[in-house]
Amino acid sequence: MSGRRSTIESLSNPLVKRMRLLREKRHRRAERLFLAEGLRIATEAREAGVLPAWLFLGPDGAGHPLAQALIDATMAAGGEVIDTTPAILSKLSGKDNPQTIVGIYAEPQATLADIDRDAAPIWLVAERLRDPGNLGTMLRTGDAVGAGGLILLDDSTDPYGVEAVRASMGAIFTQSLVQARWDEFLPWLRSGAGELVATWLGDDGVDYQAARYSAPTFILVGNESQGLPAEYAAAADVRVKMPMLGKADSLNAAVAAAVMAYEVLNQRRD
Amino acid sequence: MSGRRSTIESLSNPLVKRMRLLREKRHRRAERLFLAEGLRIATEAREAGVLPAWLFLGPDGAGHPLAQALIDATMAAGGEVIDTTPAILSKLSGKDNPQTIVGIYAEPQATLADIDRDAAPIWLVAERLRDPGNLGTMLRTGDAVGAGGLILLDDSTDPYGVEAVRASMGAIFTQSLVQARWDEFLPWLRSGAGELVATWLGDDGVDYQAARYSAPTFILVGNESQGLPAEYAAAADVRVKMPMLGKADSLNAAVAAAVMAYEVLNQRRD
Repeated sequence: MSGRRSTIESLSNPLVKRMRLLREKRHRRAERLFLAEGLRIATEAREAGVLPAWLFLGPDGAGHPLAQALIDATMAAGGEVIDTTPAILSKLSGKDNPQTIVGIYAEPQATLADIDRDAAPIWLVAERLRDPGNLGTMLRTGDAVGAGGLILLDDSTDPYGVEAVRASMGAIFTQSLVQARWDEFLPWLRSGAGELVATWLGDDGVDYQAARYSAPTFILVGNESQGLPAEYAAAADVRVKMPMLGKADSLNAAVAAAVMAYEVLNQRRD
Repeated sequence: MSGRRSTIESLSNPLVKRMRLLREKRHRRAERLFLAEGLRIATEAREAGVLPAWLFLGPDGAGHPLAQALIDATMAAGGEVIDTTPAILSKLSGKDNPQTIVGIYAEPQATLADIDRDAAPIWLVAERLRDPGNLGTMLRTGDAVGAGGLILLDDSTDPYGVEAVRASMGAIFTQSLVQARWDEFLPWLRSGAGELVATWLGDDGVDYQAARYSAPTFILVGNESQGLPAEYAAAADVRVKMPMLGKADSLNAAVAAAVMAYEVLNQRRD
């Protein structure tokens, strides 16, 4: 299979109009496509074996050797490479100063059944995550600690929005990503190996460094403003808390996930 | 001294127009005032002894006992309490669904000379921080680990913008905050006790758990996309790196600061 290379210079081109709509969640859902900006993230994707269905290049987009590798790989995989204008890149990305590369990717359709839990010692699980920056940051952290992926519970923000993709710094292409309801997740978890560790602010939490973690460890963090429901925490194998020496009673959700994930990693390194 | 209580219902009220401009950095600079939303953050401020010059209350704003405490304390400190409409709160905050309380606070004017470095074992230092969410999150983490405050080097994003204040979850009122140039910071640091620990991605970084930290520890993190300048890292007492097991070569700046800060705290707890 071999792709095409074409040129689009009109802002009213139907493909541009269609792709621009991917900034809205309902259109991403309908199309099962999402947008990622920048050579760096697109190169991370390529190295993970993921290529765009459409690759939009600005006038300076093809100059870098990594861009040429991306163009070649996209064409070889049957994708379409489109030389275009800065105005169209702005329209696609919604930014005044767009990156010189915008890729349109197929949204993975993974479910819990697709997860090979033994493939990684750490998995992140977030419940009703609201902030796309936090979501992308968790994916990025997951990549760093050697996690297998991120499981989003209940009604979390869309991981394929531009802000989450950007904050992931490419980890959206390397980490598994599954969305599930708690009522699906818990039976799935209990159907195999795995320790569920809840970050918890209640009185019965144990110090996060006192607990010993066994792989695969599922690190569960709750909603940014409400934390975890008590029922979810009660179902966990262990409820842990980090020292909080100040006035505030909680950490940012992505920070809590990272501090916990590095503790689990460090125990494995010892 | 005792304050006033008044009512404003007109969107064209001069005070409303003036306060609304505080969403722009240049007006914050000119007025030396900033805006913080929500009863929770205003209560954190009150408990830290910081009261607003103006306290705007929506129709439901005075119902909570903590709101009454805030009203009383604001009046007692000579501030003005203003009963107002949801439309005016929206105008002030720039949000469609504003919180029922908006406080306008005097911007602290602290400099390096005001820092009592021995007052806390940990200090966070960020260089050219660009993202207000990261900045606020660092303040929040600093509060949690018992840090003294955050020193912003060179041209960082404005810590008094609405997004940074919101992400700090009140820590903007409890952590010291100083903006300085590197050329001021380094001589100040070397004029007293203190270990400068740079998070560093270069080859000469030591594992962050292998280094032993002594108080006061100054944790230095670099710009989100470029990291620290080599010159800054070279001036540090130790350059540390966290394990990075995946494809990416760096962590989110606020995450890196938090993972480091908890390591320093944990060594002190051992």
